[in-house]
Amino acid sequence: MDARDLFLIGDLRGFTPQIGRLVSMMRYVRHTTLAELGGLGVEQLDHLHDGESNSIGALLSHIAAVETWYQAATFFGRDLDAREMEEWGAALDLGEKARSEIRGHDLAHYVDRLERVRAKTLEELARRDDAWLEEQSPFREGQPANNHFKWFHVFEDELNHRGQIRWLRKRARW
Amino acid sequence: MDARDLFLIGDLRGFTPQIGRLVSMMRYVRHTTLAELGGLGVEQLDHLHDGESNSIGALLSHIAAVETWYQAATFFGRDLDAREMEEWGAALDLGEKARSEIRGHDLAHYVDRLERVRAKTLEELARRDDAWLEEQSPFREGQPANNHFKWFHVFEDELNHRGQIRWLRKRARW
Repeated sequence: MDARDLFLIGDLRGFTPQIGRLVSMMRYVRHTTLAELGGLGVEQLDHLHDGESNSIGALLSHIAAVETWYQAATFFGRDLDAREMEEWGAALDLGEKARSEIRGHDLAHYVDRLERVRAKTLEELARRDDAWLEEQSPFREGQPANNHFKWFHVFEDELNHRGQIRWLRKRARW
Repeated sequence: MDARDLFLIGDLRGFTPQIGRLVSMMRYVRHTTLAELGGLGVEQLDHLHDGESNSIGALLSHIAAVETWYQAATFFGRDLDAREMEEWGAALDLGEKARSEIRGHDLAHYVDRLERVRAKTLEELARRDDAWLEEQSPFREGQPANNHFKWFHVFEDELNHRGQIRWLRKRARW
């Protein structure tokens, strides 16, 4: 993304009009997530604010895991397979398992995974069109969700956790 | 909004196509913000997790204040006036002033303000069209922002703080 386009939501080369607007939003959100991470080392990424907290590393893994889950659901109409659950299960669920398993990685590890997952998302979105975005399937409580909502939800979940990362980072005594 | 439409981003009666999609997102976000608030009394709304924290009440005021600021900027091309700054200044800035001034209100106070501000937003958006959404003006660091970005930013800021409200609510010992 051209840095000059950071504050523009609109047409994006290589994507249909609605998908371009959605991708504009996803890119801005990711830009702001990455902007919170400068200078974080392994100790900071593993830090637990209290016994119920998720580390910043676990939250970053969660953001990539949620995106991976929605790739499987919307692009391929399936759940994560056993190998994918091995890689992403703890990050998807957060909590105790994530606190014990997601540790000891440097910032590049988390950023690389975010970028690898995102590259796949953009590759698949570029192959689809606005009619695909409108396709619906049953979602929570039996109500339908369309693909537009599902990809909106991916970045709205990221924003929720970006808010928590900001809060945690501000308080970290390291 | 029909509850059946909660997970659909798309055309919305009374709005042009792009504005309808934007409003679909704003409504979902607000739905999830309000879903965090059930049962909160004055003491809980005023609670400060630590000396640097914003209370949940202050975060709710901030969400309404940011929306008010962007109403003035995008609908009327102006800053907040003195009377509006009197009402919203502490909530816009958060921090020390908000900690001392935004206290003692019940949940209805915050929800009423959110709803009052939102009603005005929807009334004004219904009068505008997708071409208006594309209009640009100088924004941060001299880069342009269009109105589509600015209203996206209003709800992405709300999501950031919804994440913090969830975190605070989960830890509150009350």
